[in-house]
Amino acid sequence: MFSDTAEFHRWFAQRRQAHAYKVTRTPLDRLDGWSLEEGTGDLVHRTGRFFSVRGLDVRRSGRGVEAWQQPIIVQPEHGVLGILVKEFGGVPHCLLQAKMEPGNVNLVQLSPTVQATKSNYTRVHGGRPVPYLEHFVAPRGGRVLFDALQSEQASWFFAKRNRNMIVRTREDVPLHEDFCWLTFDQIAELLQTDDLVNMDTRTVLSGAAGLRRPPAPGGDAFSAALAASWQPGGRALHDTAELLSWFTEAKDRCTLERRLIPLAGTARWSLRDGVIAHDDGRHFTVLGVRVEASNREVTGWSQPMFAPSSRGVIAFLARRVEGVLHLLVQARIETGALDRIEMAPTVQCQPADHTPGVLGAPLPGPRPPFLDEVLGAAPERVRYDALQSEEGGRFHHARSRYMIVEVDEDFPLDVPPDYTWMTLRQLIDFVRHGSQLNVEARSLLTLLGFLPARPAAARAPLPASTA
Amino acid sequence: MFSDTAEFHRWFAQRRQAHAYKVTRTPLDRLDGWSLEEGTGDLVHRTGRFFSVRGLDVRRSGRGVEAWQQPIIVQPEHGVLGILVKEFGGVPHCLLQAKMEPGNVNLVQLSPTVQATKSNYTRVHGGRPVPYLEHFVAPRGGRVLFDALQSEQASWFFAKRNRNMIVRTREDVPLHEDFCWLTFDQIAELLQTDDLVNMDTRTVLSGAAGLRRPPAPGGDAFSAALAASWQPGGRALHDTAELLSWFTEAKDRCTLERRLIPLAGTARWSLRDGVIAHDDGRHFTVLGVRVEASNREVTGWSQPMFAPSSRGVIAFLARRVEGVLHLLVQARIETGALDRIEMAPTVQCQPADHTPGVLGAPLPGPRPPFLDEVLGAAPERVRYDALQSEEGGRFHHARSRYMIVEVDEDFPLDVPPDYTWMTLRQLIDFVRHGSQLNVEARSLLTLLGFLPARPAAARAPLPASTA
Repeated sequence: MFSDTAEFHRWFAQRRQAHAYKVTRTPLDRLDGWSLEEGTGDLVHRTGRFFSVRGLDVRRSGRGVEAWQQPIIVQPEHGVLGILVKEFGGVPHCLLQAKMEPGNVNLVQLSPTVQATKSNYTRVHGGRPVPYLEHFVAPRGGRVLFDALQSEQASWFFAKRNRNMIVRTREDVPLHEDFCWLTFDQIAELLQTDDLVNMDTRTVLSGAAGLRRPPAPGGDAFSAALAASWQPGGRALHDTAELLSWFTEAKDRCTLERRLIPLAGTARWSLRDGVIAHDDGRHFTVLGVRVEASNREVTGWSQPMFAPSSRGVIAFLARRVEGVLHLLVQARIETGALDRIEMAPTVQCQPADHTPGVLGAPLPGPRPPFLDEVLGAAPERVRYDALQSEEGGRFHHARSRYMIVEVDEDFPLDVPPDYTWMTLRQLIDFVRHGSQLNVEARSLLTLLGFLPARPAAARAPLPASTA
Repeated sequence: MFSDTAEFHRWFAQRRQAHAYKVTRTPLDRLDGWSLEEGTGDLVHRTGRFFSVRGLDVRRSGRGVEAWQQPIIVQPEHGVLGILVKEFGGVPHCLLQAKMEPGNVNLVQLSPTVQATKSNYTRVHGGRPVPYLEHFVAPRGGRVLFDALQSEQASWFFAKRNRNMIVRTREDVPLHEDFCWLTFDQIAELLQTDDLVNMDTRTVLSGAAGLRRPPAPGGDAFSAALAASWQPGGRALHDTAELLSWFTEAKDRCTLERRLIPLAGTARWSLRDGVIAHDDGRHFTVLGVRVEASNREVTGWSQPMFAPSSRGVIAFLARRVEGVLHLLVQARIETGALDRIEMAPTVQCQPADHTPGVLGAPLPGPRPPFLDEVLGAAPERVRYDALQSEEGGRFHHARSRYMIVEVDEDFPLDVPPDYTWMTLRQLIDFVRHGSQLNVEARSLLTLLGFLPARPAAARAPLPASTA
């Protein structure tokens, strides 16, 4: 247990130095254990397990670009992302882990208690057992507070879902060396730091947003509106029947068709110089890495990763409606998601794709709605702004700017059909049912539900060792 | 408006006689507008629209039979099933329709206000406009009370879903000749009649079970337990977090793999004498019909239908737990369902498959759990028992015995992992989120939520004209 987050940062800096890691770029065609399958060109592991990189053909997307082909990660098995919670002195603490993932810019971030693919925990690669796994697989001793199959980045994964779990235990829990107990309030502070709390932790914590009442420090209208938005049974612009109908309507309207195709036949993508890249240098690159680590399930491995070509912006616009904070939620076409439409942030894009000159001509189609409202917001309107990493186990240096921007009360409540206004409590109720909020919306739900009591402007500078 | 259901039955008998219908069996290989596609043998319409019959390969099903192949209906487009509700004298009434479907044993049944595939209502077959459709497509004037994408019979449909809607209007609504307004209580009485309220109406009405408080006539312990089970926020054996975890666990455990294959290559099924049948005469037959009708969107058409080989039993076991009725719900592997697992009745099978001598040897694997408790229940334990038809637009004489059977309070609460106990209110909350309850469970939810005030034993005999 830490008395404050400064103590945590000292511990974390120590854990970061306790192990040796080395990540080396390796050409895909010389990646140990991986090969380009004959006939299809699909990138597969020799065991046929883990994941593969294949091609996806997309049609009738209803986006600015109507049809395209792209590489995509196919990983049909569900993994487990689990956070163990235990009360100490009446205060709930989450068990988190200092864990290296090869794609992280800073290698080590805070991950859930358990972050394991089925290949991991059934020990296909013959590694060490996964610590604390027994709390998350049946029969369990603890009480399940949250348990849902949730989608992951649907632009890069085909129908991938992980099981997100929060389990409360009353048993004694031995503390392994890379693990620590953190209170909700400490986590709230740490979420203000760039690239520290990893994506898997953020998505699982979205299931805890309903458990932690946002603090309402005296007199601040934004905090009061946020607390009202969290309130169960509170006032909302739209009731649940209306929101469900809005979501059903969007699914009914969606025409997206997609099918897996051979990677070798994926138009406008090719393998050159050991990476698979788009002809225009856009979107992302598939590259290979060799990883050496002293404390992972196995001490070394190689794998392909997806490296985005530019940084994403992921933002909710928020507006007070009669004193209750509402978020502008998008019913977004998610190429790889099981049901094709999920609830998403107001803005979720790579701005470089829409800015002339950055990657050549901007992508066809209109500029993403509300992007300018987000990027052009006055500083005092920005309620959250930090760089967070996407999954470091599959994505290489994939960082997005996560923002919560409050708009004026004269911002129109009447929005395009793919958007609607929801309270924090309505998002909390939807996230319990899996596959409704996309992973980016779940991260923002966590960032909003875990805003610390003191305003972001007053946050402490990072200790040099974690920067 | 009808003063009682006797008056309804007179009107319905009249509507039944107002139109001329003729359904003629026709060999599949001579079915007007349909053909067996070259190469695949798939049964397709010349327009490429409506639906097709293809093959499905099933593996690792986790059922008694682990792997098989079968014909399946592929109909990717969503239809609309909508019921319009309007208050007259402060009492909500549903607008239902006397509608012919060629597969119904009695041809005409009560269908929703709108029951239309997208091909129907975009008028691919050049028929008449669909009455009342404007209440269900955006922009709508009324208020949406229920709107969800719901699965249909997943043993016979591949990933088929329809949009189930209930819309309340305050506008004047002209009454067309085959339509009538019925109160919830009148519908409750009519649901006691065999083969009268069609499947589409029953599935939509599951969204109204939360709107109609089950009557609790004085002193009857079952009715009191049912009313307590309906109560929002009432006591329940398991809370929502536990039920969601049970459902997630079942999805995580499921190993089912399925893929579409050419119909011509479907093992153990073949076209003989104008029908596609299984070598053992089991399961179902695909047959063709020619339909002539004086009042449908088009006056004549031909189509394939699925005709089950034996009658289904679809039942909930119900048990009082501390005065609150709980239903025994199954997390069932649904071959054709989008997400493979849905919440289902306690028992859902064709008993002939499990009874020696009826269709030869019984199917391999254990006898379906709880089937004997359902079929062997003492008459005073049977709270509902009627024959209801499955979708008469695709299924030929497909009738199932729907039952609600109350078990003693010494019946074990500890059940196998694929089963759990839920209250009526918990089912009502789940059904709002589409694709959680299967179509059979939704029918039973309606039958339970619409039990009439007087006990089933006292129900009036049917007038001869509707028998």
